Amino acid sequence: MTSRKTSTTPRKGVAPTGQTVRGQSALWAQATPVAARTDGIIEGLRRAKDWDERTARVAWSRLAEPADPVAARLLSVHGGAAAALAALSEEPRACREAFARRWDALDLHRDLELTRHCDARILIPDDDEWPSGVDDLMEPPYCLWVRGPLDLRRVCERSVSIVGARAATAYGEQLAAEIAAGAGERGFAVVSGAAFGIDRAAHLGALAVQAPTVAVLAGGVDRPYPQAHTDLLEDIARSGAVVSEMPPGSLPLRQRFLLRNRIIAAATRGTLVVEAGLRSGSRNTAGTAAQLARIVMAVPGPVTSMSSAGCHEMIRSGMAVLVTDAAEVAEAVGEYGSELAPVRRDPDRPEDALDAHEQRVRDALPVRAGHQVSRLACDAGLPETTVGACLGRLELMGLAERDAWGWRLRR
Amino acid sequence: MTSRKTSTTPRKGVAPTGQTVRGQSALWAQATPVAARTDGIIEGLRRAKDWDERTARVAWSRLAEPADPVAARLLSVHGGAAAALAALSEEPRACREAFARRWDALDLHRDLELTRHCDARILIPDDDEWPSGVDDLMEPPYCLWVRGPLDLRRVCERSVSIVGARAATAYGEQLAAEIAAGAGERGFAVVSGAAFGIDRAAHLGALAVQAPTVAVLAGGVDRPYPQAHTDLLEDIARSGAVVSEMPPGSLPLRQRFLLRNRIIAAATRGTLVVEAGLRSGSRNTAGTAAQLARIVMAVPGPVTSMSSAGCHEMIRSGMAVLVTDAAEVAEAVGEYGSELAPVRRDPDRPEDALDAHEQRVRDALPVRAGHQVSRLACDAGLPETTVGACLGRLELMGLAERDAWGWRLRR
Repeated sequence: MTSRKTSTTPRKGVAPTGQTVRGQSALWAQATPVAARTDGIIEGLRRAKDWDERTARVAWSRLAEPADPVAARLLSVHGGAAAALAALSEEPRACREAFARRWDALDLHRDLELTRHCDARILIPDDDEWPSGVDDLMEPPYCLWVRGPLDLRRVCERSVSIVGARAATAYGEQLAAEIAAGAGERGFAVVSGAAFGIDRAAHLGALAVQAPTVAVLAGGVDRPYPQAHTDLLEDIARSGAVVSEMPPGSLPLRQRFLLRNRIIAAATRGTLVVEAGLRSGSRNTAGTAAQLARIVMAVPGPVTSMSSAGCHEMIRSGMAVLVTDAAEVAEAVGEYGSELAPVRRDPDRPEDALDAHEQRVRDALPVRAGHQVSRLACDAGLPETTVGACLGRLELMGLAERDAWGWRLRR
Repeated sequence: MTSRKTSTTPRKGVAPTGQTVRGQSALWAQATPVAARTDGIIEGLRRAKDWDERTARVAWSRLAEPADPVAARLLSVHGGAAAALAALSEEPRACREAFARRWDALDLHRDLELTRHCDARILIPDDDEWPSGVDDLMEPPYCLWVRGPLDLRRVCERSVSIVGARAATAYGEQLAAEIAAGAGERGFAVVSGAAFGIDRAAHLGALAVQAPTVAVLAGGVDRPYPQAHTDLLEDIARSGAVVSEMPPGSLPLRQRFLLRNRIIAAATRGTLVVEAGLRSGSRNTAGTAAQLARIVMAVPGPVTSMSSAGCHEMIRSGMAVLVTDAAEVAEAVGEYGSELAPVRRDPDRPEDALDAHEQRVRDALPVRAGHQVSRLACDAGLPETTVGACLGRLELMGLAERDAWGWRLRR
């Protein structure tokens, strides 16, 4: 834990950035007219080029919503987050204005305090623990807040998202928990969103077998949502990880749920949808997973259940592969070729070993009084010599027997 | 009906074939040793080359089991069924022997009598009513016995097989009946095997909406099987068609069910499996349908139901497409592109029309006391001008309203 806590502290050689920013933001107070304020921004942003990467990324988390296209473009074009902040000062006025109010409200000292207070750490892409899957996103998170003992990168390397309807049925919750437990027993981390219904069942299934489980939240990691899952999230933080790209204190606004879903999809090897209506956030998660060439899976259910309609639609359209249990999930997201699910079949019967001629003779055998070989040959449409040979083998297999009249079926 | 009955009578110019065969078979009676009998066969088969096609095909139905590879080879190589009979005399002794006993038992006069007695007609490939789909089989039927008023070829041109488990659940039977009725209302003939469970439900669903339905039997068309479905088969014969490739009087032996399945698969545009265990005859039907490039469909169910396990396996392996109702079946087997199932979606909501900025502003709106534009701009991370424009549109759509403090969400 000690080594992790260090990551929440700005690196050596960095100015007390919170203060600096405060100072800058004081240049244009709330009442300052927009024109004056944007001049202030330009000055402030230019100075940000000396910030360290972690501080600059925390600032981006405050300035821009997740997946903001301007932020994503600047971060990908310029060397680092600090350079991207500085580059923002060169953007057209209309663009800068979008960030003006939030620049005013920026208080990085308070952010670090809140992070420390909820015992979270801040991950940035350079960190060993950064879950590399999220880099596949066109607009990756600026940074991630993490609570809990798990090494996020390591668990995501063998992981599956299990998501689905909040208004789940007992069938769906039962299956989500069973599959999560089965995946957990096979060494997969179960990633979900801690929502009501399927998400909760998936986390509980993993917790029940002491498997790693990761909850990705739409608000800050210090804001249990839904509130009814406060205890669940504490349990997850104790043994697994509670993750968010939003700074502590952030509200779980509606659009942030969709943005959160992209992290669930990108961080894991595959996404399983257990129940989903036709209009479901889980389908959005699955869609992102499909775009990122992750495995998408769905569990079918009764076609009379609207809670499975989204799953059926995804299977039907070819977006998702149908799975029915944890073994099939492991086959899909596990090591290629080495985790094949057992072929589903009923137990063998003696009849399975019969060749075509033997089957025809067996079919021609009467149940009660036996028939002569000549009659069986006629019924089976086979030469008598063939029938004789088949009868010998059927007798050995315990499928035919002789009686006073000839040959008959042995039950 | 009159025009059809003629097809059961040998054509003009044909010798009284039944008698002829009788005479030949008398050459080697039951007690005759095999060597003498095969000499007799050679003589009899040579004379069969003058039989008419229909008579020769009825003889083949008696001599060989359905899909007999020798029969299929001879029928495909030689010009017609009579020539194929004659060619059998050139085959090696062991091969001829396979047919010896049945040649002895041949009684074509009795076959025509039985056919007439159960008011059936005999179809051969030259007939207008022959369902051309079965010609795609490697081993097509020698001929087909048909009872009922339907023109078999015409109804098969717009048809779907609906098959499934005998030990079906209430869920499966309900769905089979509903989908059959829906397919019937869309002008599809429903083809099935008159078995317990799904087959029966499918026939009943079609009958309920006065849609054409076809039962393909494993035994003769005069042998209702299962016996409990005698009334059902009478109903089908009255308005639809009861079909078999076996001559009247033939027993529904076990292997003939699998052979019957290939006709169901081949005659129709597609095969729908409603419920099937892992070891199910319906999967065999579906397998044949897939081999013949027919559409294969399966209805999902609870993964906890073994009655759906076969369906899930077929969908999972890519053999079958998942369908949930008659509209989706019609889309799959109907006219290409012109019978698309309606896209499944929930009703539209006003929010669906919002663009990304409007959504962000809507998300930032408080539920109770309103916020000023400047505060909303900060929460939404957008310039005030953009927020102002969005608020105007949201107000027009009835999603935002003003109060004493500013703007809030309108519920």
